[in-house]
Amino acid sequence: MTEERIVFIGGGAAGATAALETRKRNRDAKITVIEAGPYPQYSCCALPFVLGREIETYEGILIFDEGFYRDYGKLDLMLNTRVVGIDRESKMVICERCSVGYDKLVISTGSYAFVPPIPGIEGIGLGKRTFTYKFMPEAEALDRAISDANKVVVIGAGLVGIEVADALRRRGLDVTIVELLPTVIHMMLDEDMARLVTDELENMGIKLMLGTKVEGIEETEGSVIVSIPGERLEVDACVIASGVRAETSLAKKAGLDVGMGIIVDDHMHTSDPDIYSCGDCIETTNAVTGRRTLDQLGSSAVRQARVVAANLAGGDIAIRPTLSTSITHIGSLGVAAVGITSNSARDSGFDVLTARFKGSTLPEYYPGGREITIKLVFTPEKKLLGAQIIGTDGVLARIDTISAIMQLGGGLDELNYLETAYTPPLSPTIDPICLAAGAALKKCERARRG
Amino acid sequence: MTEERIVFIGGGAAGATAALETRKRNRDAKITVIEAGPYPQYSCCALPFVLGREIETYEGILIFDEGFYRDYGKLDLMLNTRVVGIDRESKMVICERCSVGYDKLVISTGSYAFVPPIPGIEGIGLGKRTFTYKFMPEAEALDRAISDANKVVVIGAGLVGIEVADALRRRGLDVTIVELLPTVIHMMLDEDMARLVTDELENMGIKLMLGTKVEGIEETEGSVIVSIPGERLEVDACVIASGVRAETSLAKKAGLDVGMGIIVDDHMHTSDPDIYSCGDCIETTNAVTGRRTLDQLGSSAVRQARVVAANLAGGDIAIRPTLSTSITHIGSLGVAAVGITSNSARDSGFDVLTARFKGSTLPEYYPGGREITIKLVFTPEKKLLGAQIIGTDGVLARIDTISAIMQLGGGLDELNYLETAYTPPLSPTIDPICLAAGAALKKCERARRG
Repeated sequence: MTEERIVFIGGGAAGATAALETRKRNRDAKITVIEAGPYPQYSCCALPFVLGREIETYEGILIFDEGFYRDYGKLDLMLNTRVVGIDRESKMVICERCSVGYDKLVISTGSYAFVPPIPGIEGIGLGKRTFTYKFMPEAEALDRAISDANKVVVIGAGLVGIEVADALRRRGLDVTIVELLPTVIHMMLDEDMARLVTDELENMGIKLMLGTKVEGIEETEGSVIVSIPGERLEVDACVIASGVRAETSLAKKAGLDVGMGIIVDDHMHTSDPDIYSCGDCIETTNAVTGRRTLDQLGSSAVRQARVVAANLAGGDIAIRPTLSTSITHIGSLGVAAVGITSNSARDSGFDVLTARFKGSTLPEYYPGGREITIKLVFTPEKKLLGAQIIGTDGVLARIDTISAIMQLGGGLDELNYLETAYTPPLSPTIDPICLAAGAALKKCERARRG
Repeated sequence: MTEERIVFIGGGAAGATAALETRKRNRDAKITVIEAGPYPQYSCCALPFVLGREIETYEGILIFDEGFYRDYGKLDLMLNTRVVGIDRESKMVICERCSVGYDKLVISTGSYAFVPPIPGIEGIGLGKRTFTYKFMPEAEALDRAISDANKVVVIGAGLVGIEVADALRRRGLDVTIVELLPTVIHMMLDEDMARLVTDELENMGIKLMLGTKVEGIEETEGSVIVSIPGERLEVDACVIASGVRAETSLAKKAGLDVGMGIIVDDHMHTSDPDIYSCGDCIETTNAVTGRRTLDQLGSSAVRQARVVAANLAGGDIAIRPTLSTSITHIGSLGVAAVGITSNSARDSGFDVLTARFKGSTLPEYYPGGREITIKLVFTPEKKLLGAQIIGTDGVLARIDTISAIMQLGGGLDELNYLETAYTPPLSPTIDPICLAAGAALKKCERARRG
């Protein structure tokens, strides 16, 4: 019998992690990773932090170099290789210039930047003065373009939009964010919490134009002109950060079940038992609503990849529905969320209550404590639907703890009386997340009394 | 009908919190807090940090002043008042100079410093050059005594011992710790993890004499002489930090059920349905072993107090068994633990495996990541028994998250695939606690295969 052939389409966070984890468990398989781009795996999430120069070089965010895959991973990494089809009958991955046979296939094609249908956009060659921001080559191109720029417009105030705006501002540029919605990162934050972020952005000197529709875009010799109602913003560069879409075209063409993303079961199988999928290209199940969703977080991709590798090696690992536990760093603020926002909860038919609590990361008497704001979203029956946390310190500790509680089925009662670790220089006697739960429980009580 | 009379014996963290929380839920009750000491509630845990001058004054760690209890709390705080008996028949608390009737009574008498039977100790008047370290007056006396001291011996390397040694060293003193056991904070850490703490203490210039029995102590006009095998340490002051004991004498005298501590049910009732108890004076149930234990953490006292207050107000809150989730800060290290150590697990009859994992608080490519060491204690059946974490940053986040998982009944599988929040400036894609669980699971697999 010949060696098992395992092929990964896509060498990003999901594909590369799954391939290397597979190698750890299977010394004999022939493992091939086919990547369309010119680089081995790098951290997409880190691109804005190279732009902001917290990380020195783009090379620095390559997780491993090519030699590592070859020498340590003993796997065949094919860069700059575009897959054009999957022949499920003959179990072949068809590339432009070659074909690769597989016994097991993993589709980890990720996502691509969505370009909204702005009038004029089709006449612009992206990558000169107008950029999407998803992959390293375009991030590098933007970085080169701003070296002699003064003014930039960022279209979109999602995570990538505000992270890029933050980085550009720290590079000394005059930055304007234009966002159609009246708020920022609305997937993570309720409007009242988002206001803490807009305040921070404005304090940094970033101009925010919320609730503002981009009506046109054009490039001239020396500038980009972004038209909004009553105004033409003439800038040196424009970043389009309007979200991403799952890259499902190959899967669709191959006849696999595809919705907003590739459909997988909790063992990460697609509708073909020999084909797995993981990363930004798949649909996941939201743990709170039970609905299909696109999670598209780097951490989720890697977690899913570990599950794929375990199951490829004969494991029986089911992935839990996702809570989209996420965090970012804007200006001096840590900004984090888990579960769903109030709006999303109402859309999902929940009877929604909220409680916002402002506490400190340290006991009052200890110097250096930082204000931390915690918002809980819950039902009158004390079910925890989501949490949002913002502060200059200690945000990670609290979001991960609440996330753990929610992942294990706990609610407000469990959070209220949670055992947390206490010592004056590091934490208060009763953590603010517990006090927030106490405040929330009072609202439940009042709601029950009518 | 007259107002309900609720009396609290002891105005420390447990008693004061329970009294104030009771007031929040009951505007009409006559609430009395009887405290033997001269101060309203202060943070005992903060005393070493005043000694070390992170906190400026002892007054600073008083949680509220007397006026607050009177004016805001509308409760009668009797300081310097020693209770000598409880008459359960007539429902009276008997003090030295008065008696106070109760309908409901809460015993929150706390704990006291244990003084080991060192030859010579009975001839010494504590508080001149030799000090225990539990209450504010003795902490203040030590602080005055070291103002012109050079050399100090600390007897005992438990939490209080090493925190006091750390503070004294930062005050510039020549500090020696003498400890009978071959390790430090053995209640929290296995010996291999404790070594990171002893290294830190030694790097600070603190002398450690582990496995060393104190054979005698005597005071002269100008010094204390601590005798150990083959040596007489002549120093300016000596701190006895040999642990605490539950203060149960009143409860015992009143005929309540008492073991190592006052025995309460999960609603914090003593064996008398009209008497509750909480704080350092009670026995709790260890969540891992199911055995009775003395938890004696400030955070536990306050959590128990909140449960007492809720139940006094007609609630039906059961407290969960304890995991003794705890943390301290020594030198530059955060040092934390949850559950039980390897030794304790073996003593409890578990089949014990351990895994130690060294990770980083940030992705490798992001500058400023700090090494963090995680040790997990578990069974071959993947049950998590305990965790120990040491690092210069990010320790709180990880211990609270693991604690939450354990509190909600999760084990290694849940920890391995836990959703944690990721952004390069604040956290790695897969958290080191998850990677530690992955390493632990491999050990389980190997153990099952034999």
